[in-house]
Amino acid sequence: DPKLKIFSLSSNRPLAEKIAADVGVELGTLSSSQFSDGEIKINIDESIRGCHVYVIQSTSSPVNDHLMELLIMIDALKRASAKTINVVLPYYGYARQDRKAQSREPITAKLVANMITQAGADRLLTLDMHAPQIQGFFDIPVDHLLGAPLLASYFLDHEVLNHDVVVVSPDHGGVTRARKLAEFIKAPIAIIDKRRPKANVAEVMNIIGNVEGKKCILIDDMIDTAGTITLAAQALQDAGAEDVYACCTHAVLSGPAMDRINNSVIKELIVTDSINIPEEKVSEKIVQVSVSQLIAEAIKRIHENRSVSPLFQEKFV
Amino acid sequence: DPKLKIFSLSSNRPLAEKIAADVGVELGTLSSSQFSDGEIKINIDESIRGCHVYVIQSTSSPVNDHLMELLIMIDALKRASAKTINVVLPYYGYARQDRKAQSREPITAKLVANMITQAGADRLLTLDMHAPQIQGFFDIPVDHLLGAPLLASYFLDHEVLNHDVVVVSPDHGGVTRARKLAEFIKAPIAIIDKRRPKANVAEVMNIIGNVEGKKCILIDDMIDTAGTITLAAQALQDAGAEDVYACCTHAVLSGPAMDRINNSVIKELIVTDSINIPEEKVSEKIVQVSVSQLIAEAIKRIHENRSVSPLFQEKFV
Ligand SMILES: Nc1ncnc2c1ncn2[C@@H]1O[C@H](COP(=O)(O)O)[C@@H](O)[C@H]1O
Ligand SMILES: Nc1ncnc2c1ncn2[C@@H]1O[C@H](COP(=O)(O)O)[C@@H](O)[C@H]1O
Repeated sequence: DPKLKIFSLSSNRPLAEKIAADVGVELGTLSSSQFSDGEIKINIDESIRGCHVYVIQSTSSPVNDHLMELLIMIDALKRASAKTINVVLPYYGYARQDRKAQSREPITAKLVANMITQAGADRLLTLDMHAPQIQGFFDIPVDHLLGAPLLASYFLDHEVLNHDVVVVSPDHGGVTRARKLAEFIKAPIAIIDKRRPKANVAEVMNIIGNVEGKKCILIDDMIDTAGTITLAAQALQDAGAEDVYACCTHAVLSGPAMDRINNSVIKELIVTDSINIPEEKVSEKIVQVSVSQLIAEAIKRIHENRSVSPLFQEKFV
Repeated sequence: DPKLKIFSLSSNRPLAEKIAADVGVELGTLSSSQFSDGEIKINIDESIRGCHVYVIQSTSSPVNDHLMELLIMIDALKRASAKTINVVLPYYGYARQDRKAQSREPITAKLVANMITQAGADRLLTLDMHAPQIQGFFDIPVDHLLGAPLLASYFLDHEVLNHDVVVVSPDHGGVTRARKLAEFIKAPIAIIDKRRPKANVAEVMNIIGNVEGKKCILIDDMIDTAGTITLAAQALQDAGAEDVYACCTHAVLSGPAMDRINNSVIKELIVTDSINIPEEKVSEKIVQVSVSQLIAEAIKRIHENRSVSPLFQEKFV
């Protein structure tokens, strides 16, 4: 039987170590460094001939470096006769550039899909892509895991569920995700409906659904500069919400994000470790739940030719 | 007749401006910036539908950012219906990773070739690739310009040619390049033959050819950390050379390069502007000659369906 090997690149080694432990293997040995001029140098330090190889990398910031490291690794694995190359992207960078919003724009999410495929990947395992349509950018099998059941499991043990709770989507795009979480924790949903009355006038946040006197749980796929989520939280409080919790799968947390979150009415922010959060960004308000068991279980199922979709219903905290 | 348009990406705007001026067009307008999380955002600000587009970018440091910016631009041009996309890479990064020197290494120069082609480039125009074999990594037309005639033109006006001159290759790999320069300036050549007598013993530099009492001109395709070139210069002086000049096409100049050059016996270092040299690295010893006329002439010839190869014989300073 061909062997399963897991390698970690440099974006999220703590998560990769947990995944390998949960799968029950040691991480493969690999040197990835930079030459003096910044070019990436990779050498795989053990034979992978005939193996099923899983490479764990999030294309989080610095996104171009993490993406090139992944592509160079795929190239090296291919030339070293891996039997299959399975790319595990807990976070898929450039996913928001998934369509031409204006003329003469690129579709970088598709460019990235082509690059990964053409470098030699046989399969992709990823988590909460910004739009599920990105699966169709690939002509190789894609397994798309969901963060909502994981976030739900966290809340199922939380005292907030002793109160009147409503799950809130910060925009219309996220309603499916909010419904998923709401089903798991058996709560109603509400939606924030942003409208700009005229050009150059601030957006008005209307809340569709009843939040007064309730504990709200905002959910989004990612929090980047945290503008949307903190404004949404404020709108909920202004509408009489008792407490506002927020959760997301991908903690991008760039630019003003931490200041905004720390100064916001958000009581607690639950995120996963799909992106490694540097020490200096860990704040008292942030709780991390690990996607490691979820990804490990998916890897085991793929390796054993079993279906991955039952994982959408399970709890992994 | 389809129009010719030239766009500059962010690695070497001063060179791109010179090239556009030499071709006799304005640079196209383009916004290239970064989102808060570091993802590249490109928007082409003018129609390029049906045009022959030339994109000027050197994949110098930060190489991964410059490469991704190029690929995203190619994607945007393709989707905006450019008639042809012509990539002008004055410096081709990752060119030294052009073969498996050890087991389980990538061949990143080929990966980059595939990425450029698959993003949608129709043609490549480049200058002194580390190995001319990299042309064969592409299945699209590649025009490969040479820096030696340009460097030669500089020396033809230099008082050093009033003396006894010898052109020196710092290693066996560079002999063809040294011969080319030597032909232009009508000088003999010498070669530095590095041998390591045993493992873990410093290399010994033997000089093949006569340099005693002569003015030497070292030539290489690129100077990166400047270790090779400064040691070679010292070896020439130790062998009785009267003065040592050095020249190269690509001024990578990473890490200790500037200190080594400034503290070396090299009297003058002649480089091109294929890579933009930041202000703080400009030193009194460094002379820059521009590749702009050479590249501009090549672009005009490609656009007019005329052969590019006569340029290998011409002088462009
Ligand atoms: N890295 C990024 N940071 C912020 N905005 C982005 C980024 N990438 C793409 N976008 C923009 O976000 C929008 C897509 O987000 P959405 O409407 O939520 O799918 C598009 O208009 C993009 O121009
Ligand atoms: N960016 C780089 N900086 C320094 N050395 C490199 C770089 N890329 C590749 N190399 C190494 O340089 C050697 C190729 O150089 P050469 O023998 O001159 O063709 C290979 O052994 C590579 O491992």
